Amino acid sequence: MVALVSNWPDRVRFAASGPIRGAWEGDRFVKQYTLAELASCCAVPFDGDGSTVITDAAVIAVAGSGDLTFARDEVNLSKLSSCGASAAIIPLGCELPGLPVLMADDPTRVFVNVVKLFRPAPLEYPAGISPLAHVDSSAQLDDTASVQAGAVIAANVEIGPRSQIHGGVQILPGTRIGSDCVIFPNVTIYEHVVIGDRVVVHAGCVLGGYGFGYDLVDGSHRLGYQLGNVIIEDDVDIGPCSTIDRGTFGPTRIGAGTKLDNHVQIAHNCCIGHHNIICALAGIAGSVTTGDYVVIGGQVGIRDHTKICAEVRVGAQSGIMQDITEPNTYLGSPAVQDQQQLKTFAVMRHLPEMRKRLRQVQRELSELKSRLDGDGLISEDAA
Amino acid sequence: MVALVSNWPDRVRFAASGPIRGAWEGDRFVKQYTLAELASCCAVPFDGDGSTVITDAAVIAVAGSGDLTFARDEVNLSKLSSCGASAAIIPLGCELPGLPVLMADDPTRVFVNVVKLFRPAPLEYPAGISPLAHVDSSAQLDDTASVQAGAVIAANVEIGPRSQIHGGVQILPGTRIGSDCVIFPNVTIYEHVVIGDRVVVHAGCVLGGYGFGYDLVDGSHRLGYQLGNVIIEDDVDIGPCSTIDRGTFGPTRIGAGTKLDNHVQIAHNCCIGHHNIICALAGIAGSVTTGDYVVIGGQVGIRDHTKICAEVRVGAQSGIMQDITEPNTYLGSPAVQDQQQLKTFAVMRHLPEMRKRLRQVQRELSELKSRLDGDGLISEDAA
Amino acid sequence: MVALVSNWPDRVRFAASGPIRGAWEGDRFVKQYTLAELASCCAVPFDGDGSTVITDAAVIAVAGSGDLTFARDEVNLSKLSSCGASAAIIPLGCELPGLPVLMADDPTRVFVNVVKLFRPAPLEYPAGISPLAHVDSSAQLDDTASVQAGAVIAANVEIGPRSQIHGGVQILPGTRIGSDCVIFPNVTIYEHVVIGDRVVVHAGCVLGGYGFGYDLVDGSHRLGYQLGNVIIEDDVDIGPCSTIDRGTFGPTRIGAGTKLDNHVQIAHNCCIGHHNIICALAGIAGSVTTGDYVVIGGQVGIRDHTKICAEVRVGAQSGIMQDITEPNTYLGSPAVQDQQQLKTFAVMRHLPEMRKRLRQVQRELSELKSRLDGDGLISEDAA
Repeated sequence: MVALVSNWPDRVRFAASGPIRGAWEGDRFVKQYTLAELASCCAVPFDGDGSTVITDAAVIAVAGSGDLTFARDEVNLSKLSSCGASAAIIPLGCELPGLPVLMADDPTRVFVNVVKLFRPAPLEYPAGISPLAHVDSSAQLDDTASVQAGAVIAANVEIGPRSQIHGGVQILPGTRIGSDCVIFPNVTIYEHVVIGDRVVVHAGCVLGGYGFGYDLVDGSHRLGYQLGNVIIEDDVDIGPCSTIDRGTFGPTRIGAGTKLDNHVQIAHNCCIGHHNIICALAGIAGSVTTGDYVVIGGQVGIRDHTKICAEVRVGAQSGIMQDITEPNTYLGSPAVQDQQQLKTFAVMRHLPEMRKRLRQVQRELSELKSRLDGDGLISEDAA
Repeated sequence: MVALVSNWPDRVRFAASGPIRGAWEGDRFVKQYTLAELASCCAVPFDGDGSTVITDAAVIAVAGSGDLTFARDEVNLSKLSSCGASAAIIPLGCELPGLPVLMADDPTRVFVNVVKLFRPAPLEYPAGISPLAHVDSSAQLDDTASVQAGAVIAANVEIGPRSQIHGGVQILPGTRIGSDCVIFPNVTIYEHVVIGDRVVVHAGCVLGGYGFGYDLVDGSHRLGYQLGNVIIEDDVDIGPCSTIDRGTFGPTRIGAGTKLDNHVQIAHNCCIGHHNIICALAGIAGSVTTGDYVVIGGQVGIRDHTKICAEVRVGAQSGIMQDITEPNTYLGSPAVQDQQQLKTFAVMRHLPEMRKRLRQVQRELSELKSRLDGDGLISEDAA
Repeated sequence: MVALVSNWPDRVRFAASGPIRGAWEGDRFVKQYTLAELASCCAVPFDGDGSTVITDAAVIAVAGSGDLTFARDEVNLSKLSSCGASAAIIPLGCELPGLPVLMADDPTRVFVNVVKLFRPAPLEYPAGISPLAHVDSSAQLDDTASVQAGAVIAANVEIGPRSQIHGGVQILPGTRIGSDCVIFPNVTIYEHVVIGDRVVVHAGCVLGGYGFGYDLVDGSHRLGYQLGNVIIEDDVDIGPCSTIDRGTFGPTRIGAGTKLDNHVQIAHNCCIGHHNIICALAGIAGSVTTGDYVVIGGQVGIRDHTKICAEVRVGAQSGIMQDITEPNTYLGSPAVQDQQQLKTFAVMRHLPEMRKRLRQVQRELSELKSRLDGDGLISEDAA
């Protein structure tokens, strides 16, 4: 079998799928198509030199020589003539931009297909348990589940149909994972966590660690109860290195359809609503509840026991210190409505100048009073 | 052996411990007790319908039908009649709240016992080394230590009595772990780290990574020395995905009894005092020292080489830029004493209005001067 | 073979390298040298009692009895007489400080050598694949690469000369790693990541996780395309638990010589320049580009699609909301030039007092107007 070097960004080699395309350039084998060939692959018309050689696909901002790019609106169409791309995909019927083009009803869709042509074929992980995985004999795995080398699955764990468990994943006893989930490498899932269907947990996540609650007893911090668990509802995605702590008595819950970015911290007893978006490095303290369709920006902090109603948006780096009962966008630490906060931010830049002006006003006022008092024209009694 | 479905939140199945309780509901086996049975289990009196069926225990804020809840003060007792719980545990001798109750000297303690009845029995990890763990022949493990499948323990590592090493833990050469520690899955401990007794390190932590210090030499960043290590004293807890970097020449040290939350970063050469509490996503830069009983809120940042005296409290998201020598609560970035900062925060909301008022004052003052000057009544010399 | 207890901070034992030095103290074997022996080891002159026993080396701030410390400038030389060290290394020709000394052209270099004497010998990981690692048969590893127990290397992965892959590392199919890299334990590298030469990836990192981009379709968040990869150029260091997400269509790129601290988040499509320094817990949102020699402080957040020019420095906890086109230091959230921001911070502390003064000014002004109006001396028409 010959290993080929593709034009995958930089130097990745992969086994070509389908007919081998391309040519050797020194020690690199570069995949390439002519524009006419791509037009034929995608069943769309082209205009300009059909023999133009295309070696990759890229968005306008970074496209260079050999790249096919795309534009679907006036703003991007106007950039085509000055961008570095060798050709572009444009909407059918729009004005020609002066470089070779494919024309398509939906330029984005065609672009995606071209990108895929230049990328390795998607990977399929076969069903079944790798002989190099460690699965406890009491665990119940669906026959169509896939467990990779180096995964460790403890007693009484259940895993549903078509779910994939990658290498290095550690699942402690009593956890249950539904169907069509993907648990990426090196994830740790503590005891008795419940995961629904179509959940994606990215590498390095920790689900079910201890809640961070302590009582000070005789000068030492005594850990609170850890009798709850974590429940991840259907269609949740959890980004790399995020952590969700187990509840004190009952569950910490992530609502269906919610998406967490990287390094997100969800503390014990939280109840996160449906279809929330929680961006990287956000920290949600204990017993917070959020409604549905809440969007939380990066590095946001939310105080413990706060209640946030549905459809709230919180700007990056904000700090939420109290309940939010009105759907709106909030910003700042402590956070207020963003329109108000932006005004405050704008004024803050003028603070040193304001302070000078205030001093000047005080000086002038004092001067004025002196003038009035000095002239003796106005009696003090009059005031 | 029949696998049973418990009423563990949602759908976890576990092997019942003790007598099997409950009934099938479709494909779920729900554990349940009558109130009278629970009263008998807990050796406390009850009032109201003893045949009330209890299927779980939950705090008032989330309790629903079938749940037993508890209240121990006036505030919570007053919520009982309107909460969704089927029954409650209340203090002996207090007024009956209109739903069935257990009565107890210490409602919290009884509640905890009831929660445990509804949860799977706590897990015990047997002593000994799993045949699926990889332990270097030069490592010295106490016979009562427990090493799970998939752990890797390198040369010259020592592990004391009753300490548990979970799967996926990687311990590099020369590290020493005391007695009664728990190292949860996928933790990495670099070379020559020293860990005391009763230390808990949660999943995904990294202890002993390189300190982040570089010198710019000929246009490139050259890594500083990494000749120190990390010392974790007794009774420290470290939350999931936290990291503690090794010292430059000597140790980075975490004092006895200190508790770290998730995603905490402790940089090289830090010396953290005893019984500190450091909340999630806090970042402590290099060579910081803290006294005892310091509490650091979530997402706090502390500048390198800062010294913080004992019993300081730092509010969430604060930034500490200079030494703190007085025990107090500090807030904001840059942080000042919280009472002062809260006043500043309160005024900040009025900044746009203050700016308008300042302009108005300037206008009025200028007008007034014009009136005075215009009337010619007051001579300039008088001022 | 006798396991010895060194004087490594606290209680780590290691096999002594070279001649055994030291003496038993109870159950601890403490390594020690006389000052004269150290002078001889380092080929430098000494002054004072050559029989002074030295048991460790430490910087002035933490040095105690038995420690050798060093000073190379006036500030530190003046601290020597009052610090706890038993001896010091000082520059040749400078005034003697009143404790035994070694004298050296370069005190730092000699100090480093002494520290090394007291530390375990550096570790060497042998070339070759541990029989306890899992390497796919299609992977191409250089003979001099080293793969430790518990690593999992998937199909079509390539690893260059002398690169070390530690235990628990999971490398998914198609990834390529250059020469002289170190991938510390429990790192996850997703499919088709490209890593250059001399790259260090610390424990717990995740490279190539999915970009956090979603479209709201029929009330659900639909994940964006994940057709790109991650490219790490030569000489990059990545601190523990950092994450770099894969690009949408093309790469997320980290430029040569750039150093990332712990818990750093680099989102999809970012293009980070050469020789950047990015401190702990910083979050860089999608499609950000930075020039060369940019320094980003701890807990900084950078908005998506922001462009930052070369040689910009961003203070800790800042928030960058818009492009930066001028090399300078920026601070605050939202960030402005640091000199301006420091003035604003200084004024903020006076805000409550400013508000009072503004009220006072308004009151006085109104009083003054009343006096003028009340006296009837100034006609309204004059204004």
